[in-house]
Amino acid sequence: MIEEKTIDRLKRHVELENPEALINDLNNMHSADVAEVFERITPEERENYFKYLDSEKAADLLEEVSPQRQVELLGTIGEEKAAEIVSKMPHDLMADFLGDLSDEEINNYLNKLPQRVSSQIRELMTYPEDTAGGIMTTEYLSVSEDMTVEETFKYVRSQSDSNIDFYYIYVADKLNHLLGVLSLRTLISSPLDMKVGNIMETDIFKVQTLDDQEYVADSLIKYGYLALPVVDNYNRIKGIVTWDDAHYISEEETTEEIYASSGISTDMIPEDEILTGKLSLAVRARAPWLLITLVGAFGAVNVADHFDNILAQLPIIAIFIPLLIGLGGNIGTQSVTLMVRGLSTGQISMSSALYQVLREIQIGLIIGLTFGLLVMLVTWGWKNNIALGSVVGIAMTANMTIATLVGTSLPFILKRFNIDPAVASGPFIATAIDIIGLAVYFILVTLSLRYLV
Amino acid sequence: MIEEKTIDRLKRHVELENPEALINDLNNMHSADVAEVFERITPEERENYFKYLDSEKAADLLEEVSPQRQVELLGTIGEEKAAEIVSKMPHDLMADFLGDLSDEEINNYLNKLPQRVSSQIRELMTYPEDTAGGIMTTEYLSVSEDMTVEETFKYVRSQSDSNIDFYYIYVADKLNHLLGVLSLRTLISSPLDMKVGNIMETDIFKVQTLDDQEYVADSLIKYGYLALPVVDNYNRIKGIVTWDDAHYISEEETTEEIYASSGISTDMIPEDEILTGKLSLAVRARAPWLLITLVGAFGAVNVADHFDNILAQLPIIAIFIPLLIGLGGNIGTQSVTLMVRGLSTGQISMSSALYQVLREIQIGLIIGLTFGLLVMLVTWGWKNNIALGSVVGIAMTANMTIATLVGTSLPFILKRFNIDPAVASGPFIATAIDIIGLAVYFILVTLSLRYLV
Repeated sequence: MIEEKTIDRLKRHVELENPEALINDLNNMHSADVAEVFERITPEERENYFKYLDSEKAADLLEEVSPQRQVELLGTIGEEKAAEIVSKMPHDLMADFLGDLSDEEINNYLNKLPQRVSSQIRELMTYPEDTAGGIMTTEYLSVSEDMTVEETFKYVRSQSDSNIDFYYIYVADKLNHLLGVLSLRTLISSPLDMKVGNIMETDIFKVQTLDDQEYVADSLIKYGYLALPVVDNYNRIKGIVTWDDAHYISEEETTEEIYASSGISTDMIPEDEILTGKLSLAVRARAPWLLITLVGAFGAVNVADHFDNILAQLPIIAIFIPLLIGLGGNIGTQSVTLMVRGLSTGQISMSSALYQVLREIQIGLIIGLTFGLLVMLVTWGWKNNIALGSVVGIAMTANMTIATLVGTSLPFILKRFNIDPAVASGPFIATAIDIIGLAVYFILVTLSLRYLV
Repeated sequence: MIEEKTIDRLKRHVELENPEALINDLNNMHSADVAEVFERITPEERENYFKYLDSEKAADLLEEVSPQRQVELLGTIGEEKAAEIVSKMPHDLMADFLGDLSDEEINNYLNKLPQRVSSQIRELMTYPEDTAGGIMTTEYLSVSEDMTVEETFKYVRSQSDSNIDFYYIYVADKLNHLLGVLSLRTLISSPLDMKVGNIMETDIFKVQTLDDQEYVADSLIKYGYLALPVVDNYNRIKGIVTWDDAHYISEEETTEEIYASSGISTDMIPEDEILTGKLSLAVRARAPWLLITLVGAFGAVNVADHFDNILAQLPIIAIFIPLLIGLGGNIGTQSVTLMVRGLSTGQISMSSALYQVLREIQIGLIIGLTFGLLVMLVTWGWKNNIALGSVVGIAMTANMTIATLVGTSLPFILKRFNIDPAVASGPFIATAIDIIGLAVYFILVTLSLRYLV
């Protein structure tokens, strides 16, 4: 984290009209730190600082900020300089950035690039955002199989000023079909006159241009690769996806999972629009599951309404409703959270459903009995009514145990029917526990009415 | 994901008593895939498969499974072979594995290793698990500053059979003080007779042995490095932390954050014990926040109890309690989730608190007014009582709007007082909304009592 005093120092340079000191400070900072500074200053200050960055540093900075911020920053400087900065960005980010612009603006930028690069960028822009094609970069090293290790070294050296990541060197034929891959490690430890065709790894894990980005990121992480090649239907290499993309995607997917758990849907609304986009988008992301919960809650109201004669005879029982459904909801949500996260990280598999359900019921019983006893004692002492205490206590135990049972089973059942448990579990559990909890409570009250009145 | 048919094929090899086919299949799979298979078969099958793996593959597999599984698998084979497999594991994982064993067992393993390695492992075991020292490995390349590029190449080549990752080559003096770092890229693109002291990067981002693992992982990800050097108080290099550790730690931290949001505390109980460890550990992780919620829920019960004369006069109002606190709780939790996640990923900073609160109140009003109207119409139609419908509808609107206000402010307030918002927000929001929601509802009912009865 950037400290406050760093930002204060930068601001002081501006106040004292000392651009040299500002330029010096900014250029000595890592671009990720400059990005953090830019998030914490005003738009005017951003404009003021950005114009001083050289185009290399500015391009590095743009890699670290959101697409909206990219557009904002580039809009504050001249078209010429903007084009120069954009031309220094990695190709995948350039395509993402251009993707949000109008056709005319896109042409303005691309016409200033070499023909080969601009056609690569145009191709990148044709892939859907959340696919391997949408996240890959076209900057990778490829050599032919009859090149020697020495020739390959020379080629790698000639490319060392570019944006290209060197982790792996791909081997392709004249028509660009992917034949194999070489790590820099293999290259270094091989004799100089060896042909790369003889030392390349041919058993390659590769993905297709239209594979889902989550699958691509998970594979990179699972196998611990630094990059994966992306091929088309004819096994022609189109680009690579690198490990830093995997982290970004996995963070995005986690955010979507966390949002889903509280009924915020990212199916229609992009995740990053929900916090800062138009209000109508935020409402559309949040209202649907609330509406489903509303229907469920009316179900609970209906259950309570069936017992209106009990409520009329014994209004005191109503005051314990928030206690029962509150605690039931909480422990049930704990179970749901554990199962959904476990299924998502792979710590839990479908085959261990029964084990988990039995385990959770025991936990529900242990906690439920303890809390039931506590609630019984408190209610008995408070209202000086042992029958009331007992009914509320027993309802508490039943409710918490049933809640763990429902909360544990629900994610497995949803997954079994190919419904994403992260999305559906939250609202369903709340409703189910409200309805079951109230029903159990009112039935217990009805059965023991003659001791209560 | 491994397909079911792959597992079936492996099982068939065992049934047909065809170990060669089994060995062949397992050795052709990536160790991450073998680990996935091992999670989905029985303990007997695991034992059966594990004994066929050669020690190289077995060591790779152990890198991919949990510490408990490591102990289980190594316990099924002879001591000699176990020691051979362990000696092939990366040093950081070896230290983690040995850390769970008895002193006698540790000595058994370490005595079979070269003196230099075993003393490195013993040192690794002295660092707390969640620090840079606890996650670093001692396998890195270091050279002296007066070596030439050519000599460095030779040295790198001589190490190419080891477990060492080559991303960066560190430059240290005779007393092992860290002087600089070289990427393989720089090395490849430099003249062979250049001294590494002249081409190394001296402005190094490094961490200290006792730095928190979360800080280390966040730094790796933020700056996009493949590895970070870990130094002691005297700037002597002790090891490196690599990018694959960063992902693992960041996933672990995310799990803790998700658990915390539903009141599952990982402060005292390790995260991976909660799902599969002893029941008593799971109860201890889950009960504390439930207990706090219980106290809060009794607060809500107390509020309702203050209005017992209203309940006696008009028992019907009790049936809407689950509806009001349910929807209030849901929309409030949405706000909490958005703020907590935003603060955690850095999308939201403390300085934007006011903006977010104002924004969320508007969203709460929009959704609250819509839902209030809906609830009013349904209740009016159902109970044929416009006054009742209006009171419940207005309570709904007020409740949802207040819930977004509370849910948005709470995380900022907690963070301001240095309380982790992820941990405390969940239980606090549930309680606050129960109490405020009930109070608002009963006050509205009291005020309009003459229209209702």
